[in-house]
Amino acid sequence: MSDYAAPLAEMRFVLDEIAELPALTKLDAFAQVTPDLVDAVLDGAQKLAGEVLAPLNRSGDIAGCVLENGIVRTPKGFREAYAQYVEGGWNEIALDEEQGGQGLPQALATAVSEMWSSANTSFALCPTLTMSAVELLIAHGTVEQKRIYLPKLATGEWTGAMNLTEPQAGSDLAALRTRAQPEGDHFRITGQKIFITYGEHDFTPNIVHLVLARLPDAPAGSRGISLFLVPKILVNEDGSLGARNDLRCVSLEHKLGIHASPTCVMSFGDAGGAIGWLVGEPHRGLNAMFTMMNRARLDVGLQGVALAERAYQQGRAFARARVQGRPVGADAAAPILQHPDVRRMLLSMRATSEAARALAYYTAAATDRARHEPVAAARALAQRRVDLLIPVVKAWSTDIGLEAASTNIQIHGGMGFIEETGAAQHFRDARIALIYEGTNGVQAQDLVGRKLARDQGAAARELIVEMRACDGELAASSGELARLRAPFGAGIAALDAATALLLDRYAAAPASALAGSVPYLRLMGIVAGGWLMAKSALAAERRLTRGDGDQRFAKAKIATARFYAEHILATAPALLPAIAGGDTVMSFDSELL
Amino acid sequence: MSDYAAPLAEMRFVLDEIAELPALTKLDAFAQVTPDLVDAVLDGAQKLAGEVLAPLNRSGDIAGCVLENGIVRTPKGFREAYAQYVEGGWNEIALDEEQGGQGLPQALATAVSEMWSSANTSFALCPTLTMSAVELLIAHGTVEQKRIYLPKLATGEWTGAMNLTEPQAGSDLAALRTRAQPEGDHFRITGQKIFITYGEHDFTPNIVHLVLARLPDAPAGSRGISLFLVPKILVNEDGSLGARNDLRCVSLEHKLGIHASPTCVMSFGDAGGAIGWLVGEPHRGLNAMFTMMNRARLDVGLQGVALAERAYQQGRAFARARVQGRPVGADAAAPILQHPDVRRMLLSMRATSEAARALAYYTAAATDRARHEPVAAARALAQRRVDLLIPVVKAWSTDIGLEAASTNIQIHGGMGFIEETGAAQHFRDARIALIYEGTNGVQAQDLVGRKLARDQGAAARELIVEMRACDGELAASSGELARLRAPFGAGIAALDAATALLLDRYAAAPASALAGSVPYLRLMGIVAGGWLMAKSALAAERRLTRGDGDQRFAKAKIATARFYAEHILATAPALLPAIAGGDTVMSFDSELL
Repeated sequence: MSDYAAPLAEMRFVLDEIAELPALTKLDAFAQVTPDLVDAVLDGAQKLAGEVLAPLNRSGDIAGCVLENGIVRTPKGFREAYAQYVEGGWNEIALDEEQGGQGLPQALATAVSEMWSSANTSFALCPTLTMSAVELLIAHGTVEQKRIYLPKLATGEWTGAMNLTEPQAGSDLAALRTRAQPEGDHFRITGQKIFITYGEHDFTPNIVHLVLARLPDAPAGSRGISLFLVPKILVNEDGSLGARNDLRCVSLEHKLGIHASPTCVMSFGDAGGAIGWLVGEPHRGLNAMFTMMNRARLDVGLQGVALAERAYQQGRAFARARVQGRPVGADAAAPILQHPDVRRMLLSMRATSEAARALAYYTAAATDRARHEPVAAARALAQRRVDLLIPVVKAWSTDIGLEAASTNIQIHGGMGFIEETGAAQHFRDARIALIYEGTNGVQAQDLVGRKLARDQGAAARELIVEMRACDGELAASSGELARLRAPFGAGIAALDAATALLLDRYAAAPASALAGSVPYLRLMGIVAGGWLMAKSALAAERRLTRGDGDQRFAKAKIATARFYAEHILATAPALLPAIAGGDTVMSFDSELL
Repeated sequence: MSDYAAPLAEMRFVLDEIAELPALTKLDAFAQVTPDLVDAVLDGAQKLAGEVLAPLNRSGDIAGCVLENGIVRTPKGFREAYAQYVEGGWNEIALDEEQGGQGLPQALATAVSEMWSSANTSFALCPTLTMSAVELLIAHGTVEQKRIYLPKLATGEWTGAMNLTEPQAGSDLAALRTRAQPEGDHFRITGQKIFITYGEHDFTPNIVHLVLARLPDAPAGSRGISLFLVPKILVNEDGSLGARNDLRCVSLEHKLGIHASPTCVMSFGDAGGAIGWLVGEPHRGLNAMFTMMNRARLDVGLQGVALAERAYQQGRAFARARVQGRPVGADAAAPILQHPDVRRMLLSMRATSEAARALAYYTAAATDRARHEPVAAARALAQRRVDLLIPVVKAWSTDIGLEAASTNIQIHGGMGFIEETGAAQHFRDARIALIYEGTNGVQAQDLVGRKLARDQGAAARELIVEMRACDGELAASSGELARLRAPFGAGIAALDAATALLLDRYAAAPASALAGSVPYLRLMGIVAGGWLMAKSALAAERRLTRGDGDQRFAKAKIATARFYAEHILATAPALLPAIAGGDTVMSFDSELL
C-alpha cells in the first residue's frame, strides 16, 4: 500500500505543453523517444516510486542510518530497493547512449526524478550524487578514468559521492585545506570532509569519491583547488576490486531530516594518504564543479517540487477523510475539505507546486535544447535561459516545498505535529533543500551578481519579452483568461523595473544590490511561475475549445492559474521596496544588529 | 552558561512606549508598581530564564519525557527548575492580590512570560496551563472549589491541565463524547482525552484537571458540554491529599517538537469513573472556556515572539562568530554578519519579532485597561481592542516565530540542519504554536466571522482611525520618519478596504468571506505591526531630540522600522486579491482538489 501516486496526468500535461516534449522529440537526438516510450517510462517509474520507494519513506526516517566499525548500515529495505532501481536501468535514462545510457530527454528524466524525490527523498539523493560524478568524469576524466569508472557509475552498480565541504569551508570553498601530495602516477589525499551525502553506505561494493583538495604548489584561494577521483576500493587493471583505500566514514550527522540518507564525516589519509587521481587540470577543480552545477541544482529544486506534491497529496487525503465541524452554510459535519480555509490551503499547495513544476520541467527542457537544437543560436538562447533560471528553480522551488510541507501539517491540525502521521517528516525533509547545493541566498547572489551582471540583464530581458508575448495571447483569449492579465502584467513590469534597478545598483554599490537579491529571486520565481501558469491556462483553454482530453482537468488547470494569480502573482510588485532597500540593510549599525 | 539573554532594553522600550506602562501604573490597581519594582521583576525573571531554564532547553529536547507505570518522568533538571520557579513566586505575579497574587499588570507579566518561552518553551507551557485553570476557577468555581484549589494553583504548588480534545473532537469540540454521571454531590467522569499538555508529570504532588464532558441529559452539540474539576489526587476536607482518582496517562505523544513537555493521552474512569465536580453551570462548559481564551491565546502568540527572539539571538551570535567568504567589496574573509543577505535575514528576524512583540505587549496592556480603567467607556474600548487583536496576536506572531526559526537555520547553513546546533530545535518547537489553542485558521475565522461580523467592523474601524492619527504624526515629523508614510498609508487603506469588502461578503456569502480570512488576518497583523513600529520610531525620534536614553538604540529602532516598512509593510496591499478571491477557492471542483 502506498500513500504516494505520481500525478501522471499533470506531469504529462506539463511535459507536453510547457516542456514541449512533442517538439523536443523531433530533434535528432531524441528520434527514438516515441509517445509510447514516454508513457512506458512514466508508468514504470511510477510503479517503482509508489510501490517500492514510498513505503520505505517513513520506516527509513525512523530507523535512520547506523555506523558500526566504519560500515554504514542503511535502513531496512533500502539496499534491496536500490538494487531494483539499478536493475530497472533507471540510473542511466538521461545519459547519452554512447555513455551507456538511454538518451532520454532531461525533461523526461526530470519528471522521473521528481517521482523518486516525492516517494523517498533520502533514497533519491544517492542517484543524484552519482549523476554528478558521472557528469564530472564525462567532461573532465581521462580516457582511462572513463574506461574504469564510467560504466559502473552509469548503471549505478557503483555510486558517486561529492566531497566538497570542510568545517571552515562551507559556502566558501576557497577556504578548504585538504591536501593532495603527488606520488608517482597518483596522489595521496589527506584531510577531513563533512556533510558527505552517501559518503559511505551498503548499497554497492564500491563508492567513487570526487574530492576537492589542494596541491602542494597551489595558490591560495579558489584558484588553487584541484579535483581528485578517490575510490573507496582501489580498482585493478582488469576492473576487479582490489585493496581498500585509505578513507573512512568517521561519523554520521544527527540531522533534522532525511534520516535515511547517511551524511558522513569522511576522513582521508589517516594511514598515510588515500590514493587518488587528478580529474581535469590542476588548480581548476572549482571550474570543473560548474559542469555538474546546473543539473545538481535543478535536481535539488525538484526536491522542492516533489515534497510540495507529496505534502499536497497527503493534505488532500486527510482533508477528504477527516470529518470535523460544520462548514458555514452546511447542515451537518463534513470532511474538512469543505471548510473554506482548508480549501485555500490545499489550493495554495496545488498552485505553487504546479507553478514550480512547470518552471523545473521548462528549465530541464531548455538544457536539452541547449545541447541538441540544430541551430547554434537556438542552443545559445536555451543555454542563456538555463543559466538564468537554474538559481530560481533551486531556491524558489525549495522555498515552496517547505511552505507546502508546513501547510500540510497545518491541515492536519494537532495530528500534524505527531510524528506518526508522517506530515512532520516531509517538513523536516524539505528543510535541507534550501541549504545544500548552494544555499538559497547563494543562489540569489549568483542570479544578481553573476547571471544578471555578466550580460547586463540581456537574458532576463529576453525572458521578459517572451512573457509579454504570452500576455498578448491572454489579451486575445476569452474572458476567463483575461482575468489573469492584470496581476501578470503588473508582475512583468515589476520584474522589468527590478532588473533595471539592480543592474544599476550592482555597478555602483554591489553590496546594496545583493542585499535585495533574495526578494529579487523570489520576484523572478513568482512571475516566471505566473508566466507558465498562464501558458498552461492557454493550453487548457485550447483543449476545452477542441474538446480534447480530460475537460475537468483542463478546467481545474485554469482555476488553479486564477488562484495562483490572486494569491501568489499579485504579491510580486510588493517586493520592489525590499529589492530596492539594500541601503537600509547595509547601513544598519553592525554592532547592534 | 546561557545562550539566551532577555532583551531587556527592548522590552523596557516596548513596555514604556507601546504598552504605556507609566500611564498604566497610574491606575489605582497598579499603584504599587514602581519603576524599581518593574526593573526588579524583569531582572529577576531574566536570571531564572537565562541561568536556569535556557540551559535545560537542549538537554530537555534530547531526553524528552518518559512514561513508566503511569508515571511521567520529565527531563533531568526540570523538576528542580519548576521548584525554583514556584519558590520565586513567579507563578502568581499577574494574579490579583486577593487571589494570592502580586497584582502586577498583565503587560509586565507578558514580558516575563516571553522570557520563559524564549528560554524553554516546553517548560513554559506548564504555568500557562495552570493559569488557565486558575482563571476558570476564579470566574466559575464555587466558594468551596476556590477554597480548596485556588491557593495551591496560584502559587504553582499544584498545576492545572486542560482536557478538551478527543480524537474525533479537535477544532470542533461540539463532537466530544466524554461522559459525566451524577453521583451524590459529585460526578463520575468517563472518557479519553488527547493532546493533554502536562496532563501528567513529576513537578508537583497534585494536578488539577479541568475536563469537558457531557451530562446524561445534555443536548447534542456545543450547548451540551459541561466543565468539571477532576483532581489527580482527591483532596481531603482539611486540604491534605487523599486517594488517587480514577484517571491516568495511558501514553505520551511522539512529537515534532516541544519534547520536554509531556503531551498525554488521558483516560478517565477505567475503574468506574473519575470523581469530578461541576464548574459553572451545566451545559455551559464551552462558554466558561471563553474566560481563559484571551489570555491563553495571548500566551501562545507570545511563544511566537519568544522563539523569534531566541532564533534571532542565536542567528546573530552565529553570524558574528562564523567567518566565511569575502563579502563583496571587502579585502578578506569576514564574519558572515557582513554578507548582505545574512544582514537581510537578521533584520527580517529582528523587525518581525519587534513588531510582534509590540503588538503582544500592546494587547496585554489593553487587557489591563479593560479591567482597571476608571471610566466604563475606556474599559469597553480596551476590551473591544483586545477582542479584535487577540486572534491576530495568536496567529500572526506564531507565523513569525516559525519564519524566524527557519531563517535562523538558513543563517547557519549546513550546520543549521544538524541537531547539535540547536537551531533545528527552535524550528521544531515553533511549529506547534500555529496549531494549538485554536489553529491559525480558526483564529482567522474568529476574526472575520465573529469579531468583524458581530459589530459590523466598528472595532476595526476604531483601530484604523488610531492608525491614521499616527500617520498624521509621521507627517509632522522629520524626513527620516516621513519615509515610513507611503507604505503605512497604503497598508491602512488596504486594511480599510479589505474590512469593508469582507463585511459585505460575509453577509452575502460567508464561506467566500472566510476563504479570505487568513490573508485578511495577515494583513491586519502586518499593518498593526507597522502602526506600532511607526509609534516606536516616533518615540525613538523623541528620545533622540531630547538626547534621552541610549541614542544608538533609538537610531537602530528607527532603522528597524524602516526595514519593516520596506520588507513587510509594503507587502500588505498585495494581499487584497487573495482576500477578495474567495469565490476562486469555493468554486474549485471539490473532486479534483
